[in-house]
Amino acid sequence: MSDKPVLRIGLIGTGFMGKAHVFGFASAQKVFDLPYRLELHAVADVTEDAAARAAADFGFAHATADWRSMVENPQIDVIDITAPNALHKEMALAAISAGKHVYCEKPLAPMASDARQMADAAAAKGVKTQVGFNYLCNPMLRLAREMIAAGELGEIRGYRGLHAEDYMADADDPWTFRHDPAGGGALADIGSHALATAEFLLGPITEVMGDCITMIGQRPDGQGGMRAVTVDDVGRAFLRFANGAQGSVEGNWIATGRKMQHDFEVHGTKGALAFSQERFNELHFYSTADAPGRRGFRRIEASPDHPPYGRFCVAPGHQIGFNDLKAIEIEGYLRAIAGEIPEPFGFAAGLRIQRLVETIQRSSATRQWMAVTA
Amino acid sequence: MSDKPVLRIGLIGTGFMGKAHVFGFASAQKVFDLPYRLELHAVADVTEDAAARAAADFGFAHATADWRSMVENPQIDVIDITAPNALHKEMALAAISAGKHVYCEKPLAPMASDARQMADAAAAKGVKTQVGFNYLCNPMLRLAREMIAAGELGEIRGYRGLHAEDYMADADDPWTFRHDPAGGGALADIGSHALATAEFLLGPITEVMGDCITMIGQRPDGQGGMRAVTVDDVGRAFLRFANGAQGSVEGNWIATGRKMQHDFEVHGTKGALAFSQERFNELHFYSTADAPGRRGFRRIEASPDHPPYGRFCVAPGHQIGFNDLKAIEIEGYLRAIAGEIPEPFGFAAGLRIQRLVETIQRSSATRQWMAVTA
Amino acid sequence: MSDKPVLRIGLIGTGFMGKAHVFGFASAQKVFDLPYRLELHAVADVTEDAAARAAADFGFAHATADWRSMVENPQIDVIDITAPNALHKEMALAAISAGKHVYCEKPLAPMASDARQMADAAAAKGVKTQVGFNYLCNPMLRLAREMIAAGELGEIRGYRGLHAEDYMADADDPWTFRHDPAGGGALADIGSHALATAEFLLGPITEVMGDCITMIGQRPDGQGGMRAVTVDDVGRAFLRFANGAQGSVEGNWIATGRKMQHDFEVHGTKGALAFSQERFNELHFYSTADAPGRRGFRRIEASPDHPPYGRFCVAPGHQIGFNDLKAIEIEGYLRAIAGEIPEPFGFAAGLRIQRLVETIQRSSATRQWMAVTA
Amino acid sequence: MSDKPVLRIGLIGTGFMGKAHVFGFASAQKVFDLPYRLELHAVADVTEDAAARAAADFGFAHATADWRSMVENPQIDVIDITAPNALHKEMALAAISAGKHVYCEKPLAPMASDARQMADAAAAKGVKTQVGFNYLCNPMLRLAREMIAAGELGEIRGYRGLHAEDYMADADDPWTFRHDPAGGGALADIGSHALATAEFLLGPITEVMGDCITMIGQRPDGQGGMRAVTVDDVGRAFLRFANGAQGSVEGNWIATGRKMQHDFEVHGTKGALAFSQERFNELHFYSTADAPGRRGFRRIEASPDHPPYGRFCVAPGHQIGFNDLKAIEIEGYLRAIAGEIPEPFGFAAGLRIQRLVETIQRSSATRQWMAVTA
Repeated sequence: MSDKPVLRIGLIGTGFMGKAHVFGFASAQKVFDLPYRLELHAVADVTEDAAARAAADFGFAHATADWRSMVENPQIDVIDITAPNALHKEMALAAISAGKHVYCEKPLAPMASDARQMADAAAAKGVKTQVGFNYLCNPMLRLAREMIAAGELGEIRGYRGLHAEDYMADADDPWTFRHDPAGGGALADIGSHALATAEFLLGPITEVMGDCITMIGQRPDGQGGMRAVTVDDVGRAFLRFANGAQGSVEGNWIATGRKMQHDFEVHGTKGALAFSQERFNELHFYSTADAPGRRGFRRIEASPDHPPYGRFCVAPGHQIGFNDLKAIEIEGYLRAIAGEIPEPFGFAAGLRIQRLVETIQRSSATRQWMAVTA
Repeated sequence: MSDKPVLRIGLIGTGFMGKAHVFGFASAQKVFDLPYRLELHAVADVTEDAAARAAADFGFAHATADWRSMVENPQIDVIDITAPNALHKEMALAAISAGKHVYCEKPLAPMASDARQMADAAAAKGVKTQVGFNYLCNPMLRLAREMIAAGELGEIRGYRGLHAEDYMADADDPWTFRHDPAGGGALADIGSHALATAEFLLGPITEVMGDCITMIGQRPDGQGGMRAVTVDDVGRAFLRFANGAQGSVEGNWIATGRKMQHDFEVHGTKGALAFSQERFNELHFYSTADAPGRRGFRRIEASPDHPPYGRFCVAPGHQIGFNDLKAIEIEGYLRAIAGEIPEPFGFAAGLRIQRLVETIQRSSATRQWMAVTA
Repeated sequence: MSDKPVLRIGLIGTGFMGKAHVFGFASAQKVFDLPYRLELHAVADVTEDAAARAAADFGFAHATADWRSMVENPQIDVIDITAPNALHKEMALAAISAGKHVYCEKPLAPMASDARQMADAAAAKGVKTQVGFNYLCNPMLRLAREMIAAGELGEIRGYRGLHAEDYMADADDPWTFRHDPAGGGALADIGSHALATAEFLLGPITEVMGDCITMIGQRPDGQGGMRAVTVDDVGRAFLRFANGAQGSVEGNWIATGRKMQHDFEVHGTKGALAFSQERFNELHFYSTADAPGRRGFRRIEASPDHPPYGRFCVAPGHQIGFNDLKAIEIEGYLRAIAGEIPEPFGFAAGLRIQRLVETIQRSSATRQWMAVTA
Repeated sequence: MSDKPVLRIGLIGTGFMGKAHVFGFASAQKVFDLPYRLELHAVADVTEDAAARAAADFGFAHATADWRSMVENPQIDVIDITAPNALHKEMALAAISAGKHVYCEKPLAPMASDARQMADAAAAKGVKTQVGFNYLCNPMLRLAREMIAAGELGEIRGYRGLHAEDYMADADDPWTFRHDPAGGGALADIGSHALATAEFLLGPITEVMGDCITMIGQRPDGQGGMRAVTVDDVGRAFLRFANGAQGSVEGNWIATGRKMQHDFEVHGTKGALAFSQERFNELHFYSTADAPGRRGFRRIEASPDHPPYGRFCVAPGHQIGFNDLKAIEIEGYLRAIAGEIPEPFGFAAGLRIQRLVETIQRSSATRQWMAVTA
């Protein structure tokens, strides 16, 4: 291991997501044979104190209250941004300009126009980027994609995707940044995951008809009054795919009782897949190649046959957890930085999701079908 | 029992559906305490022979090749139509005109305009009608409706409904009457069930945006050639309900692997319901009234607590079958004829479904949201 | 149909089970092409009045308060016994002696010694008999047996069977005939079903070690006092099968929350089956012949590929109900009377179950493994 | 964090389990607020080279080929044993003798007599011990135990437990150390988990009747010949608990198709629980306190309401993975070392499991019920 090149990380933001990234770096190093030895070089937070505390807790060598200095630091290779969404763009552009690779939590930016600037800058500079869409890192989703690509379902005709939860179902819960008209709403927040999965499996969506609805029109403002909510609580769309398939998608944060209904169903000419994130170590597969009278959805349990599951558990049925997906994300990103594989989900992919979200929102507002531009 | 009034049935059509109705009459009499004693008076088929054979097989006293004579027969109280869809209108109008109650299989008529004539005629004449939408007769659907009406879910915000099967998934299967541009397609054939369930539970749909797609553009014509298909293989819609809820619905007959995905999910402010016809003796109920840490979707199994399940099985868990739903349908219709309850699903309801289907189809064709007229 | 021979039924007992049999006769005639035309000839009950009322309700031509006269009636072909268990033996022996075929509800008799007399008498006389074990009539159980017989699971190694419900879980429920030391208890009442399924699938059980426990030692006697209970609330056993397999079985009527946990799992060298009566239109099949990475339990839904499901429903996924199993039982019995097939579950089979139950009970009492004699 | 006392770890064994422990130490430190700062002080392996490589890979400061010197090292506080089972006793006794706390992978020792020596030594010396039974660390199992203890199920009457997998189902797989007559077999290997869960939930088992069967009597010896197998492939038992409950348990490593069927069902007078490790982020709860007609098994999904789930995931539905259970195990052990809580699963508990396994084995061999001695 000592002869591996070192990759030095600079982390901006020390909240829950920052901690999750640090944990992911540690896990990825334990679990995978990475192309680099990671070094937690520096961490930036709003104050020197907070940064110093985080450095001690997380194991970074240096701490700073000035993220700009960190971005300029020639000893750092990757800038990892887990700061509030509104700051992603400024930080990422600075880091790219300094030639750093950039790892940025989702959403890339509140608006597709911002995301485009970021993606363009990264492409122009030739740095490697990653946006945190870790549902896609599930071995069972990779399996699904491989099965589709290999033709195990035949030609794909239909898709039904969801991401529904209930964390905004209580109308007494206060207005938060997630309700900000600039970039907020259920479709942007979690429908984006459903859209990412849809394109991950079937390829580009070409046309959409959106339906975004605000069901809870105002929420407590935290100061005794009420504040209007204009973003969608439910955002859904009809879809057309470049491969000829049709389908639908829904993002919903008021789906009472649902905690993680990131589900999909794919129908092909020779088979089908059904998946629910509620039981994300399983993939259900129906094949018309099975004998008549013996057909049925088959519950495939995650196993070492489904890489990289075997990196985490030596036998089937043990199950990986949500946090393990972050380690998988990091491994993919590092292999992309090393040039071994294309970026798994770089800024261009993050931009793509923002574009899909905005096109659906615009379609809903104008009540018109809309083409999705590249 | 002998002191009950007699109700005399005249059946038109002796195919699978005719047999199912006869079986339903027999079951209903065994299982329920009906307001009438049923008498299988006469059966009509295309030929005297076929009718005579059916009379012997099914236990009718008389047989005829002339359905018109049967409709005029003063000894008959109820005309039961299980003839091909294209004949429903003519037969029903004749029967109504003769003052008969009319029981008609779905769809009421291929076109809403025809259905309206039938519903208007029945209303003008004051006869009692029934259309065969027997999914609604499931005790668990009645339970769901009662729970919603009683406020156990709070205010209803969202709905997601489906009826997906795969009986048209094989592109090599030939063109049939179900592909007839006049009234055919997945939305009309089975999406209609999903629409009926949606309004059964939440009340009127007021506005729709439709998306009807033909995925298999031609099918064998049975004579060595191919015949174009223009009806939808998948028909879905965004929905707005009069009660303020929003939702979506899908009819799909190319959903590979799915045999009976007549499913729904209802989200309210205080609870939720999830149902699948694949396991139709169960209803899953989530309540925010449960203690924190003890909440979850509760699998309620059909039991004598859910009438009229107890008429069929003395204990929970035994499960009723699909054919039992027909007996429940018949019991409701007979009680409506006796004036005990309103028509469970009369011609006006059948018309309503046709109207919903056509509005969604028209919305899809024009790519515009449309109001659903009463 | 008119050229079929007539088979005349004489029914003893008009309670719930009597009604279920009549309903079964009607269903079987509608659904199947039976070898006979059934005639409901006479019904016997304790009083003339009760019998007359049942005759009118159920459609029997004659009624009597004297079951012995009915048994002697030369016009009757089949005596159908749904009277209390304690009377089964006397009635059956009389009917057999008169040369009638006998259809008897389960349990055949409270004690194996009685059941043996009945089975011996039927064999000596050459009449055809049937005991009501209708769980075995489920098309998915037939499928399971066929798959095992055809070697689809390879050599069978292990079995795990259950029949657990909670209808005796409430200690405040009164003492009933089911608690009678002569023949009562959970193992006899429902464990018997689990044993029947075990032998239906794997063949003879050769050795058992039993464990029968009374958990609720007394119950209200209905007169203000308490009455001791000595029969088992839970009865389980280790099993050895003649085919070399080993396994276990449990009957349990205090399994809180369970309504119909008649479940099994079969493990073979090449595959496995898992089944739950809670969802009895499904069979779950695991095959090692599936490709690595694609293996999993496959949810086979009942379909016309699984006879005689297609007699009830024209398409998969519709689902048969518990009462439909009775019609299937009757069809098998009639075909056995006609000599087309062996008795599906005659008195010898009923005796076998009693013997298994008693051997397990004796094994439990003596705390010794015991061989099961033929 | 810097003011926490340091706890120095010495690890013996660098294979898969050693790596899992190191990973668990890292995770536990990230996720929990531990009472100690952990220091990976030294690692021992068979050769200096292997030890040095592991030290570099895992982050230990020192490496040695002499585990005895490590055990004597006064700078080390905890000896962590992941060496082969046959060495556990010698290493643990040496470590205890040197006053170290000892963390030992399961099984504690092949024989209960050895385990007793180890437990006695630890007790006499007053060191804190831990055996790796991490299934018990699942937040949903803790929830189950709390619900039972709080009386949410009423008085407990029945238990059904399993641990079934299929990793030994292929008769062509070779003989391994798991088949060693000294301590091998399905009951010892995984039935031990089912036994641990049973006592974790219901308290002490007092009496057992065992049934241990060898189904695959010989296996390839890896040198072209065959080697006899005498240990059980399936080991099951009837159980009596000190709290008055009865039940059963099964360990099975030839359960074709099953990868992680560590399942249980608990029946009480007021409620029931059902659990499957196949979906270990769920617990199914039935309560008779629910209203009639609204009862059913409720699928509780792991959430921050179920500590320490919230340490891993901020919201319900995300799901922890198998490896996270190891971090929970370590946290509990460290809190026990700090004197905050009793040992979660110390050597006495490990001994208890060995005793249960051996008593069941002896009961099976003698075909007699046996009391379980303390």
